[in-house]
Amino acid sequence: MTALFPGPGSKAELEEGDVFSPRFDRDGLVVCVTVDVHDNTILMLAYMNAEALKLTLETGVVHYWSRSRQSLWRKGDTSGQVQTVKEIRVDCDQDALLIKVEPGGDGGACHTGRRSCFYRVVVPGQDSATLVFEDLKL
Amino acid sequence: MTALFPGPGSKAELEEGDVFSPRFDRDGLVVCVTVDVHDNTILMLAYMNAEALKLTLETGVVHYWSRSRQSLWRKGDTSGQVQTVKEIRVDCDQDALLIKVEPGGDGGACHTGRRSCFYRVVVPGQDSATLVFEDLKL
Repeated sequence: MTALFPGPGSKAELEEGDVFSPRFDRDGLVVCVTVDVHDNTILMLAYMNAEALKLTLETGVVHYWSRSRQSLWRKGDTSGQVQTVKEIRVDCDQDALLIKVEPGGDGGACHTGRRSCFYRVVVPGQDSATLVFEDLKL
Repeated sequence: MTALFPGPGSKAELEEGDVFSPRFDRDGLVVCVTVDVHDNTILMLAYMNAEALKLTLETGVVHYWSRSRQSLWRKGDTSGQVQTVKEIRVDCDQDALLIKVEPGGDGGACHTGRRSCFYRVVVPGQDSATLVFEDLKL
């Protein structure tokens, strides 16, 4: 499945080349940070396998691989929160993606009903850390 | 090492609770998106093990786990790009972190000398995709 994309070249090719050769991990996945194109709020972090990435590039609609369900997942199929691709970026060693999207439906992305999955702040304490709820607005 | 943090509870506790119980993967790592506090530019994506996360919380300076070097890594030790923590967030199922930092040194984060690791845009083509260099400014 990863043969859908060119295999990674040398470090120099990966970092300074113009060939998109995403590096999938041993589960065949690449991590993806998804951002709202309107105000750059980080909506979610998820994973794509080669098929999901290929479909995302071909259709302009974001597809992920659900690790919990072990299945291809066209975001929004049940929630209506379809994500239209506005820009895809890759990082220096091509093992992480950053996608700007136009979110459909109610504009949210989190299955808990919140706009962003990052709705809690970690507050360090003496022995442990606690979480404070605060909607993400970057 | 993961015993440095409480083990994950039920789905409800993970998603709606106030206990920080990060879910490390089978390599003992949690993924971390790092953002510049000044303008929310996404600087990099990296990983932390429990020790790196504990040190980050205790010292207020970001520590990662380098997967390529297999070692704890205080960002900036060699580059001067020390990252001071301004806010840490966790996502719904507590397997991803979002950290806002004040970047030290020249304000950059990428080992290639660029400010952000996400300096290339993926442009879909007929059979493959190419990369276009463009510094990230969200």
